[in-house]
Amino acid sequence: MPKISQRGQAMPASPIRRLVPFAEQAKSKGIKVYHLNIGQPDIKTPDTMLNAVKNAQLSVIEYSHSAGNESYRRRLAADYYGKQCGIANITHQDIIVTTGGSEALYFALFSCLDPGDEIIIPEPLYANYNGFSSAGNIVVRPITANIDNGFALPSMEAFEANITPRTKAILICNPNNPTGYLYSVEELQQLRDIALRHDLFLFVDEVYREFVYDGATATSILSLPDLEQHAVVIDSVSKRYSACGVRIGALVSRNKELIATALKFGQARLSPPTYGQIAAEAAIDTPQEYMNEVLTEYTHRRNVLVEGLRRLPGVVCPMPRGAFYVTAQLPIADADHFCQWLLSDFSYNNATVMLAPATGFYATAGLGKQEVRLAYVLNETDLRAALLCLEHALAAYPNRI
Amino acid sequence: MPKISQRGQAMPASPIRRLVPFAEQAKSKGIKVYHLNIGQPDIKTPDTMLNAVKNAQLSVIEYSHSAGNESYRRRLAADYYGKQCGIANITHQDIIVTTGGSEALYFALFSCLDPGDEIIIPEPLYANYNGFSSAGNIVVRPITANIDNGFALPSMEAFEANITPRTKAILICNPNNPTGYLYSVEELQQLRDIALRHDLFLFVDEVYREFVYDGATATSILSLPDLEQHAVVIDSVSKRYSACGVRIGALVSRNKELIATALKFGQARLSPPTYGQIAAEAAIDTPQEYMNEVLTEYTHRRNVLVEGLRRLPGVVCPMPRGAFYVTAQLPIADADHFCQWLLSDFSYNNATVMLAPATGFYATAGLGKQEVRLAYVLNETDLRAALLCLEHALAAYPNRI
Repeated sequence: MPKISQRGQAMPASPIRRLVPFAEQAKSKGIKVYHLNIGQPDIKTPDTMLNAVKNAQLSVIEYSHSAGNESYRRRLAADYYGKQCGIANITHQDIIVTTGGSEALYFALFSCLDPGDEIIIPEPLYANYNGFSSAGNIVVRPITANIDNGFALPSMEAFEANITPRTKAILICNPNNPTGYLYSVEELQQLRDIALRHDLFLFVDEVYREFVYDGATATSILSLPDLEQHAVVIDSVSKRYSACGVRIGALVSRNKELIATALKFGQARLSPPTYGQIAAEAAIDTPQEYMNEVLTEYTHRRNVLVEGLRRLPGVVCPMPRGAFYVTAQLPIADADHFCQWLLSDFSYNNATVMLAPATGFYATAGLGKQEVRLAYVLNETDLRAALLCLEHALAAYPNRI
Repeated sequence: MPKISQRGQAMPASPIRRLVPFAEQAKSKGIKVYHLNIGQPDIKTPDTMLNAVKNAQLSVIEYSHSAGNESYRRRLAADYYGKQCGIANITHQDIIVTTGGSEALYFALFSCLDPGDEIIIPEPLYANYNGFSSAGNIVVRPITANIDNGFALPSMEAFEANITPRTKAILICNPNNPTGYLYSVEELQQLRDIALRHDLFLFVDEVYREFVYDGATATSILSLPDLEQHAVVIDSVSKRYSACGVRIGALVSRNKELIATALKFGQARLSPPTYGQIAAEAAIDTPQEYMNEVLTEYTHRRNVLVEGLRRLPGVVCPMPRGAFYVTAQLPIADADHFCQWLLSDFSYNNATVMLAPATGFYATAGLGKQEVRLAYVLNETDLRAALLCLEHALAAYPNRI
């Protein structure tokens, strides 16, 4: 039998995926499972997008340009990044439309890092950063953020201590998945300084840009001066418009050599999806009212979830200011076991809750064993029911500490 | 300024892409350009697909399963591979729905080959095999096929001579892009024997499966006995239904370890496109009449093109039995120069023709300089006009040999 590759073997299998059969088993027993484990919002996709696809007059579904439709890139540059985000001097030539944010990450990593090269990422981190790094034989050097200060940016000393001759880039997610932390302008400036000092690419995943609360705003790395050659944004319409399935993202940078290189990866895969681009271009015209309503809804959900969690004995939960996740510490020793137990051995009022063990969000083995990520992508009623389940579960869990 | 990666620098830039600005310049001068350079068919996408998307009742465009919608995979297994292709014993668990054939290739290569590993591919070869190999730091060992026997499979001695301890796989495209060659059952059996003897994966790109002429049929590698652990099919709906923009393909193999590994790459990129899957699932119900009409049309176009080429002095053109390409030898010394000259310095009746220099389809530097690939994706009138342009161009070309 022929052997699969070492990189294939090394690809991380998500700890969430491991739980899926247990969730299916619970459902087959008639137990309602509240999914707080994934970032699949229940928010309705704007009609603007749905109608654009319904009304598209296509006769042949052709390839688009490998960098994406020029009309879409021009509107992204002028109307979305320019007017809506207030980022000056982005042109359509600074943008490659990608198949989801995932592909933007793949293009960025492979364009800038060779096998054995290193990337520094604060952890907990979005699990697929590990996946794409692993695919590219890139070494992740994690720097651990701490729940005690709400997962703020680790110290610059910690970054400096992890820079080696193989370090090529730093990657952050802002606002952060899985912690909900919103990096401050000062923190971004610290990262800029270190990127310039060591001539590193600074990749910032800004797919949750619009999801910021309490009047805060997310500063794009593209807005910082002097960083034109170093700043690279990973973007996606998935969360912004609750349209994960269109698979449309973007790689944005003013570094022309990077864009030209990423485009060669783009040419190898021919083009991003046609229907998705039609929907995503229309999405730029989503009424501000829709965006406001969504933000109000998420703010409310966050408050319900965080207040609910904080009421539970032994639970530590920072107040996130962005995205739609919290990473909370529970009075348990093994989150993987607890999350499985919730599905396989527990129910309350014939319902249970599915959570993401935080172990999958750490690159350092052994970390995150007391933490779980909760996505507040359910409506208030379901969130409250899920919280009630969790309260009873923590009381009933035999391995509680 | 931070440096891009060596693999990024090594990514091949397509020689066709280099010609695009010259084509745009010609068009800006009012010259009609006949595009024989790309595999973008002008055939109408079946209404079955277009209507399925129009009529889709979506409220939230969600992620699908990372392996693709189960309903689609079940129909692919039972109705498409089973009934329509006559391949027995494929289940939905042997299939991962991918974002185009491109991604199936990426999953297969990365799941089976590590950096420095080698893959043997007969050349001329589809240029993006070089691209994805390059992205994965995989070494392509080309074995040169010859125009004199219509680009038939090179001898097994040539394969044996190129197998090293790092060889992990053989890749062919059947029917072939860019040559149109249809491999015989005997040739596939030879490949099976060598794959079994050396325990190599045998990847077969079968995206042109339906495009076979003169009553021939394409044999799927999945139909050969004893090859369950070695055979891997790269598939796509792009050409089959003239739906390149939906970006839906598939990776198919009965090797469970391979599928499990590829799925980890699939999970890292979350899911294939939702709209594309809706269209592709509906495509399984495309009336046979549509498929027959398309085949009749391509047969006719092939005949027009090949007969037209063979009439030109100094042109050597095999008769392809599959796909919709021919690779022909022209009485020129430098196809890259000729193809550029066609766009920058030539017109006839205010028109010219864009061809793909075959140099981009060889992994061995220096080969293919007298050859071009022509895609017969235009209607007969346009094809004849393009042939007339080419005839006059070859007469007028100053560097003719």
